[in-house]
Order: sequence, then C-alpha cells, then structure tokens
Amino acid sequence: MAMAMRLVQVLVILVFSLATFKRPVIASDPDIISDFIVPPDYNGTVDGTFFTFTGFGGIFDQAPQTVKASKASIVEFPALNGQSVSYAVLQFPPNSLLPPHTHPDATGLLFLLDGTLELQTGDLFVFPKGLVHYLYNSDTQSPATAIAAFGSASARAVTVPPSVFGTGIDDVILAKSFKTDVGTIEKIKTGFSTH
Amino acid sequence: MAMAMRLVQVLVILVFSLATFKRPVIASDPDIISDFIVPPDYNGTVDGTFFTFTGFGGIFDQAPQTVKASKASIVEFPALNGQSVSYAVLQFPPNSLLPPHTHPDATGLLFLLDGTLELQTGDLFVFPKGLVHYLYNSDTQSPATAIAAFGSASARAVTVPPSVFGTGIDDVILAKSFKTDVGTIEKIKTGFSTH
Amino acid sequence: MAMAMRLVQVLVILVFSLATFKRPVIASDPDIISDFIVPPDYNGTVDGTFFTFTGFGGIFDQAPQTVKASKASIVEFPALNGQSVSYAVLQFPPNSLLPPHTHPDATGLLFLLDGTLELQTGDLFVFPKGLVHYLYNSDTQSPATAIAAFGSASARAVTVPPSVFGTGIDDVILAKSFKTDVGTIEKIKTGFSTH
Amino acid sequence: MAMAMRLVQVLVILVFSLATFKRPVIASDPDIISDFIVPPDYNGTVDGTFFTFTGFGGIFDQAPQTVKASKASIVEFPALNGQSVSYAVLQFPPNSLLPPHTHPDATGLLFLLDGTLELQTGDLFVFPKGLVHYLYNSDTQSPATAIAAFGSASARAVTVPPSVFGTGIDDVILAKSFKTDVGTIEKIKTGFSTH
Amino acid sequence: MAMAMRLVQVLVILVFSLATFKRPVIASDPDIISDFIVPPDYNGTVDGTFFTFTGFGGIFDQAPQTVKASKASIVEFPALNGQSVSYAVLQFPPNSLLPPHTHPDATGLLFLLDGTLELQTGDLFVFPKGLVHYLYNSDTQSPATAIAAFGSASARAVTVPPSVFGTGIDDVILAKSFKTDVGTIEKIKTGFSTH
Amino acid sequence: MAMAMRLVQVLVILVFSLATFKRPVIASDPDIISDFIVPPDYNGTVDGTFFTFTGFGGIFDQAPQTVKASKASIVEFPALNGQSVSYAVLQFPPNSLLPPHTHPDATGLLFLLDGTLELQTGDLFVFPKGLVHYLYNSDTQSPATAIAAFGSASARAVTVPPSVFGTGIDDVILAKSFKTDVGTIEKIKTGFSTH
Repeated sequence: MAMAMRLVQVLVILVFSLATFKRPVIASDPDIISDFIVPPDYNGTVDGTFFTFTGFGGIFDQAPQTVKASKASIVEFPALNGQSVSYAVLQFPPNSLLPPHTHPDATGLLFLLDGTLELQTGDLFVFPKGLVHYLYNSDTQSPATAIAAFGSASARAVTVPPSVFGTGIDDVILAKSFKTDVGTIEKIKTGFSTH
Repeated sequence: MAMAMRLVQVLVILVFSLATFKRPVIASDPDIISDFIVPPDYNGTVDGTFFTFTGFGGIFDQAPQTVKASKASIVEFPALNGQSVSYAVLQFPPNSLLPPHTHPDATGLLFLLDGTLELQTGDLFVFPKGLVHYLYNSDTQSPATAIAAFGSASARAVTVPPSVFGTGIDDVILAKSFKTDVGTIEKIKTGFSTH
Repeated sequence: MAMAMRLVQVLVILVFSLATFKRPVIASDPDIISDFIVPPDYNGTVDGTFFTFTGFGGIFDQAPQTVKASKASIVEFPALNGQSVSYAVLQFPPNSLLPPHTHPDATGLLFLLDGTLELQTGDLFVFPKGLVHYLYNSDTQSPATAIAAFGSASARAVTVPPSVFGTGIDDVILAKSFKTDVGTIEKIKTGFSTH
Repeated sequence: MAMAMRLVQVLVILVFSLATFKRPVIASDPDIISDFIVPPDYNGTVDGTFFTFTGFGGIFDQAPQTVKASKASIVEFPALNGQSVSYAVLQFPPNSLLPPHTHPDATGLLFLLDGTLELQTGDLFVFPKGLVHYLYNSDTQSPATAIAAFGSASARAVTVPPSVFGTGIDDVILAKSFKTDVGTIEKIKTGFSTH
Repeated sequence: MAMAMRLVQVLVILVFSLATFKRPVIASDPDIISDFIVPPDYNGTVDGTFFTFTGFGGIFDQAPQTVKASKASIVEFPALNGQSVSYAVLQFPPNSLLPPHTHPDATGLLFLLDGTLELQTGDLFVFPKGLVHYLYNSDTQSPATAIAAFGSASARAVTVPPSVFGTGIDDVILAKSFKTDVGTIEKIKTGFSTH
Repeated sequence: MAMAMRLVQVLVILVFSLATFKRPVIASDPDIISDFIVPPDYNGTVDGTFFTFTGFGGIFDQAPQTVKASKASIVEFPALNGQSVSYAVLQFPPNSLLPPHTHPDATGLLFLLDGTLELQTGDLFVFPKGLVHYLYNSDTQSPATAIAAFGSASARAVTVPPSVFGTGIDDVILAKSFKTDVGTIEKIKTGFSTH
C-alpha cells in the first residue's frame, strides 16, 4: 500500500486545513435560492453586524516584517456563504517574496494599493484559476500592499514548495521527479521540516 | 400594444447599455475549460500586458466632486472574460450619496479603504445579489474611498430612481404604483429628464 | 453604524419573507442527482398526491376586486424542490395595475389566458430576469387572467415602490436619490406606511 | 461495425430533429450575462414585438381531433434563448392519450386549464426530468386542455414507442430486449413504419 | 385519480431504487468547495483506504453467463461524493445483449477492453446523456469486456423495456401507445412480470 | 515589469499547450442543450464513426520503456465536446514514476487494469481535483497499466517540477521559495532545460 500511503501524506495537509472549518463544508458555490445564509449555530440577530467584517481593522497601519496574507473568506466571515466572493490582503515588506502557489478554486484579481510590486499603484493583474504564480517585491526600500479578490467564498491557496517537500514524500520519488540526487532533496527538505 | 410598448421603454435602457459591448455577450459566467480567453480581435501577444489593467492609474490621487464609480469589468478589462471576478472603485466626496441600486448578477463585497462611511477603514460589508442598497458618506468634512469586488466578470448595477422615473413610464401608471398623484410624479420626473 | 442600520432596514423585508419558509433554504437550484426530493418532515407516502398541487382549485371561478398574484412555488408546493420550475396565476380586474417589480431569480414567461392586457389571449411575453416591469389592464370593462412560469422553484418578486418607500430609509436619502424635496418623499411614504 | 450502426439509427431521430434549428445550438442553459440574447440574424428593432410570441393565437378556440402538443420553445420563440423557461400547450379530445415519453432536459410542470384529465381544473402535477410518464383523458365526453412549463428554453420530449420501434433496430435485438418473438416485434413495428 | 395513480406506478420503480441509498441524496453534482466529502457516519481515519475501492477485485477473472453490469458509483464508493465521476464494468458472454437503456444523468464513455463488440479492443464510443442505446456482442464464440466512465458520481441507467412493461401501466394504455392490441401487450408483459 | 514578466513565463507553458486546440475553446463544461456538438469544420456524416475513437488501437499490446500517458480528451476526440467525460491510459514499465502533478479541471478516477502499482488489479483510487499526487510502480519486474477517467472533456494535467523549474523563474526567486541556495536551484534546473 505504499502508493496509497504516500498519496495520503500529500492529502493530509488538506485534511488538516479543512479541520479549521467548524462544520462540514459540503455546499457548492453556485447560486443560492435565498438572499443569504445564516449559519445554523448563529445566535445573534441578523442585522448590519452580521453583514459586516471587522477583522481587517487597523490592517493598513501595520508593517509586517515578513510577507503576510490575511483572508476574509467563508471561514473568517460566515456571511459570505453562498455569495461567491472573498478577499485577501497581501502585505510585502521591502525585498520580499510570496512563493509559487495556485488558487485551485477561483481566479485571483490583484489590486495594487500601495508600492510598486512591478506594477504601478492602482494597477490590476489577473491570475487565472489553477495557474502557478508568485509575487515579488523587488524594491529594497519600500513595502507594498495589495488586495486580491476571488470569485468564490472559499478560495484556497496551495503553496508549491511545502506541498511537495514538506509532506513526507519519499526522497527517492522526489529525486526522480526533480531529476536530481537524494542528497539535494534531503537538503531542500530541511527547510520544510515540521519538527 | 400599450403594455408591450411601456415595457419596452423600461427595457430600452438596458438595450442601449449593452450596445457599449464591442461584441455579442452570450457566454455564461460558469467555469471555462481553458485557463483564459483571448478575444478573437486581440492582435497583441499574450504576455503580462494582456493580464494587466492600468485603467485605475492615479485613481487614488483624485478627489471627485460627486460620487464616482469606476469599473474594471469585462468591458474595460477583456482578460476577465470567464474569470468570474471584477472590481469597482467607489469615491465619495464629503456628504455624498450613491442612490439605491441593485447588482442583479453578483454579490458585492465592499472594502472601505479610506474614510468612515459609517464603517471603519478596513471593514467589509456584503451586499447580497439582487438586494436594493445605498451608500451614504454622512461625514461633512472627509471623503471616503471603497473597493467593491464581485463574483462575476460583468457585474451590472441597476439604479432604482432613473430606471423607474427616467424611462418613459406613463404618469398614471407611476401615480398608481407610488400611491400618489400625477403632479407629484411629474415633479419627480423632471429630475430624470434626458433632454 | 448608520449606513449599516439603513442597509439592514432595506434587508429586513427579505429576512421576514424568508421566515415564512418552514426550513432553511440553502440548496441551490441546479441539477439534483435524485429524481425528486422528499422533505425530511414529510410523513405521507410518496404517491400521486405528493406530486399534485391543488391550491389553485377553483381559482378561475374567482373575480378578485384587486390585482391578485397566487403562487405555486417551493413554499406552497414542496415537491418542486430541485425541479427548477414554478408558476404564478395573475388576476386583473378591469382597469388594474401590477406595479413595477422584478424577479431577481428567474425570467418570467407570461401566458395570457383571458382578456386583452394589451396582448391577445394566447400570447406570451418574456420578462428577462432582473428587469423592472409592470402589467396594466387598461380595459375598463373586462378582467384579464394570466399565468407566469419561472425557471426556478423559488422565483421571488420584488416590488419597487414599497421596497424603497416602505422600509424606513431616511427622508433625506430618498430626497437626494429621487432628486426631490423631503416633503414630496414624506407624502409618498404615507402610502406605504405599515402602521 | 454493426453496433455502431445500430446505435446511430437510434441517434438519427435526434440528429434530424436538431436539423430544424436554424443555427447550431451549442450554448448551455445556465445564467447568461446579458439580459437577453438577440439572434445574430435578427433584423428587426428590439422592441415589444421581439419579446412577444403570438404563435398560440386562437389556440384555445380549436378542438383538435387527436392529441395535440404545441410548443413555445427557443425554436418557435427565439427570445427565450438563455431564459431557461418554455411552454407547451396540450389539447386532448375525449378518450385520448399522450403516449409514454420523457423530458430529458427539464422537469415539466403541468397546469390543467380545462377538463378533468384525472385531476381537477386548476391542479398542477410535476413530472421530474427524465421520468417516463403518459397522460390519458379517460373522459369519453369532454376534451381537456393543459399547459406545461419547463425550466429550460429547449425542453425536448422523447416518446418511447417510436424511439424504440421506429428507428430500425434489428428485430432480433428487440425480440431479446422485450423477451418476445420476432413476429411480435414485426407486428408492432408496422405501427411505426415511416413509409 | 387514475392518471396520478398510473403515473405513480411508473415512478415507483425509481422510488424503490432510491431506497437503496443509505441517506437522502439531495446534493447536486456541481463543484464542491472542499477537496472531498467524508460521510457523516464514517468512523475510520481518512487515509488511503478511504480513497480506494476494492469492490472490483478479481472481476476480470470472472466469466459471467449473462450480461453483467457492475457499478462503482457514489453508492458503492462513498468517496466519489462530489467528485463528478464514476465507473461501470460491463461483461458480455458470447452472443449477449444489454437491452435499450438511457443514462439520464451523464454521458457514458465506453472503453472496450477485450473482445470485439463491433468495435476493436481499445476503441471508445460516446453515448450522449439521455439517448437510448443498446450493446450487442454478436460474436458467438468470444466474450467481451468494457468499462464505461460517467461524468457524474451517481449515473443511473434506466432500461426501457421493464420501465414500460413491468410497472403496471394499463394494457389499454400500452396497446394505444404501441399501436397494437391488448393481447400483444399482455404477451410482452409476461416477460416482465415480477411474481 | 519584472513581476509581470516572471509571471508570464509561468503562464507561457499553458499558452503553448492551448495552441494545440484547433479553435478557440470558450465553451464551458456544464450541460449542453443539444445531445452532442458537431464541430463547425466537420465535413463527414454524423454516424457511428463520429462517436467512435480508435486512437487507442493496439495500445494494450505496447510495452513502453518509459511512463506513458495517452489521452482521449476533447482535443483527440472532438465528439466529447460538451459531454463532461474523458480518459487517459497510463502505462508504467517496471520501477517507473509519474511525477507529482495535479488535475486542475476534474477529479481523476484511476482504474488499475494490470500490475500492482501498490493497488491490486481491478482496484480504483480517487484523486480529487486540484490535489498534488504521483504514481509509482515500485515493482522492478512487472509493468502496470491503468485507466483514468475524468468528469470533464478537457481534463489537463499540470506536472509540478517542470512548471516550477523549467519556465525561467529567476534562480533567486526559486532559492527563496525552496529555502535553499542558488547553486542547488541551478543544479535542479539543468534537468528541465529545454535547449
């Protein structure tokens, strides 16, 4: 059962990340037939508070030391359930990198709010669903801030390096896959070790 | 054929607004089976320029005297075709109003970038698809700036007052509908006269 | 929080109307993978009775004094769940009006069964999803009867005048929106007062 | 290639029926992103006439001698393109039958306008998509009239007996399928002979 | 209520077949927003075993005496829930027939693994959703084996002869439908008698 | 424009692979409203040949020296357009590897026809859409053969190593991403050099 076990190690990261959902997520993203969906365990009144997300409060006053991605998806903002839209705020210190990743669920539409990030402030860049891409702030002096909107309430990001080198795939398999030797693989793996 | 004619007058605004599309828009918004769609009449190479939208350049340096909504949808940014996401930038001078309107195609997710607009900077507010809403900057001193993201590449806005009072519906019909007299209707209509 | 509160007042009508559903309506309208869906709380046998709706019995023998819209949607006829189709029967006394409204969920296909209603008996008229329209029986002697079919099991109708003037939006906001004075707004509002 | 040829004989009826469409029908039935779709070869102005279907004019004054199904789908009424709804009018003389058939594209929602047809006037009956059903007017004195609405602009009906016995499938195959002898098959086939 | 009862007799076969599902099947087949769905009553750990189906073990070593269709759909393999794909294995002894049937939920893509079946080993044949077709191994010496893949996790097959002659539809109705006499109908019905 | 250029280098592989399509692929995968779609440039008659794919002829008699994936998707078999299903045949020599890859469009359902491949002959394994996985035939003596079915007519495979190391991303970016040094990156890159 080696293949299955190997596969499962790859799957495991996603199982765990799903565990942060408070309830089974089985609904699909298409049209809902009510205007909005109130979670079964919601006890408050459905007023303006329900439709407001304050989790980004003060976010633009921060200057993170490393690249930081903050999400407002169905997990953080349950009122998005069925609404097919969500946001992430991306903050880049000078000379920083968001490594190669994909969004398997929805296209990301980047809006550069501040800094250059190889675009000009106010520019948009579209990252089609499923394509691997990275973002690099090559400016060594100035930070950059961007927003990404997604056409799904639960847009995930899958980062390539840890999903390949940090999930226990055999050294031999990886060496064959990357056409290199086991020593090189082991060296890279140390960067994604979880202990 | 009075009913049909009346109806058509209501429809007319949408027919004309569609005329601004350069080609027939008959595709649906669901999943596409390619990564992206290059318009048939696109002559350039498909490189970073194709995926970049610069139409918002310098937008945050402006201070409009009236409420201004600037869109980056499939019309302004053809690379969004099939990507199910788009943006609008909303700019409010002090004490200004975006009148009651709906988005019939997609939920709008408002992100307040600057000002208060009854929310705090950084807050989000979700406007479910099809619900009538308005936005009011009651601050008499400070402007406000917000972004709205939509889960459709072609999210329209239908503003209620002109679609009812500016499309030639009979005074008598409107008087009955709004339970008032013809004089009141005529008075309101003058505000939406197109000549 | 004024904006949020104002918004909520607009939303309220829909929240209340949803409250008439006996159970949470979170399923979407697309294809179901069973032939039909039996409600969890249905105690009868699934025979012809389950698939029959008798709520329109005798409806064509009635002559309502005001415009009357009778629905057979998922609420009245639970077997429609997942079937993507529903009906409304519209009955017009002489010289009567169904005020401007939209169907945000599905196109309405009108079938004139009796009377003229500016069409001839047997004629159809298509009202695309989301477009504002009204129906007027200008005949001062004869009633009219029509059926509307919708491609959704839960096709709602949102009537414009009460959703704008009967939901507590500030007089000042409405005056600005309709480019008129507060006095005119207050006058119109009295027609949609709920007390 | 016998199987393939046999199969094709079964397919042929659908190929021919599709040939009645004036242009390739490749769009799907989901949401369109415009309000409506004007056919490329439409020369008229887009006014009330475009949205009106008069092909049922006088239909209720007729008393057909055999069961008659009249459709208003995308073929007869091009404005339905993308609107996900259509109608058929069904007229039954006394003691008449609409043979077993299915609607592979959409659920049919029957509305009995006149007669009994085992239901009462005004009653609805839902026929889920893909289920085989028939309609029988057992009343030997009175006709019956019904409307069927479908949640698709192009709802087809596939009648079982001719699709099995009138499309050239080998007698031996049919005899095996229906667990009978070739003579019985040949006898039934004569009823569906096309010459 | 004769029509309704007749109809119900046709529906009954599907109600019963649905009863073999262990839980209500109300989810639609479109995109899910998690990677996979673990059934609520699943007690094991989600490892390679959950994603493996062993129910076809040894299937290619068997030589059934009659046509045999073995399925791996959501019922037999719950991990397929939401994955929009399933299989059936079809085994034909020499000179055997799979009678006329349709797949109302999804297109079937046949892959001939062994034998001729009027195709050559390795050939594919596509059976579009909803079309009636049959498969005949006319080779009197050799068996044939094929796989069918479907773009739905719950692809049903509806076989025409028993759904028409084995569900209690009146002899008179069937005689009219097939343009033959009651005697012929009764003769055919004996082949599909359930007692 | 460094970021955009870098991004484009990642996109390029997909642009080129799309170039193998003979015409713009803009249709979505959902339900079509005809039974099947005949390509506009198809000149033959629509008979059994159109629905048959013979490109796998003799495939099971081959014993490839390296892992080989042969597809029957919309590109190779145009009749699959709109049918939401496709196949790949996977052939593994002894001790061979199909490197880490994902299917961004559809879940893959593996059916092991021959060999062990850590499963037993006849076993299925489901690879949910978007998850990275690999397949390894650890048997040093025997080959293995599997079929994969997908719930999309155009299921792509994106192989991770070449999409990261063979598309011109800067050494520095990759070194940061994989938390290693530029020398290691350059060493790996040589395995994916295209000149």
